[in-house]
Amino acid sequence: MTLFRVSVHIVPRKGLLDPQGKAVTDALHTLGFSAVADVHVGRHLIIETQATDAKAAEASVKEMCSRLLANPVTEDYEIEAVKPV
Amino acid sequence: MTLFRVSVHIVPRKGLLDPQGKAVTDALHTLGFSAVADVHVGRHLIIETQATDAKAAEASVKEMCSRLLANPVTEDYEIEAVKPV
Repeated sequence: MTLFRVSVHIVPRKGLLDPQGKAVTDALHTLGFSAVADVHVGRHLIIETQATDAKAAEASVKEMCSRLLANPVTEDYEIEAVKPV
Repeated sequence: MTLFRVSVHIVPRKGLLDPQGKAVTDALHTLGFSAVADVHVGRHLIIETQATDAKAAEASVKEMCSRLLANPVTEDYEIEAVKPV
């Protein structure tokens, strides 16, 4: 068993309202960053987990995402990287 | 001016308490994912901004991070990618 560090992005589904992103866009405009067109705010998770290989680590993190970490109705997740620690 | 899509990770500083990460670790253990050693929870921002080139887009997002998006006392940020849309 090896320790793997898996990075995951969880973002609001495209087309769904993203009130947090809208609030950040407005705040950036107020601060003078008028070139900002749009902001999306999601979560970035770094999960350290034991697994036999990178494939097994990725599969187990996918299961964690669908069972606990991401809301399947409103969010999409993607595995960004799987690296041995 | 071109529209760039800049991805940013904002994560709790190493060594600081990360109660959200601890809560997720515990929840994963409860669900049976006993191989999980540690979880860190941060934010993942996707910022679409107009800029003359990728360097200018990155510089402007760095300024946004230090002025609004990241708490310099407790968080670190890193620009993950800068891509024209």
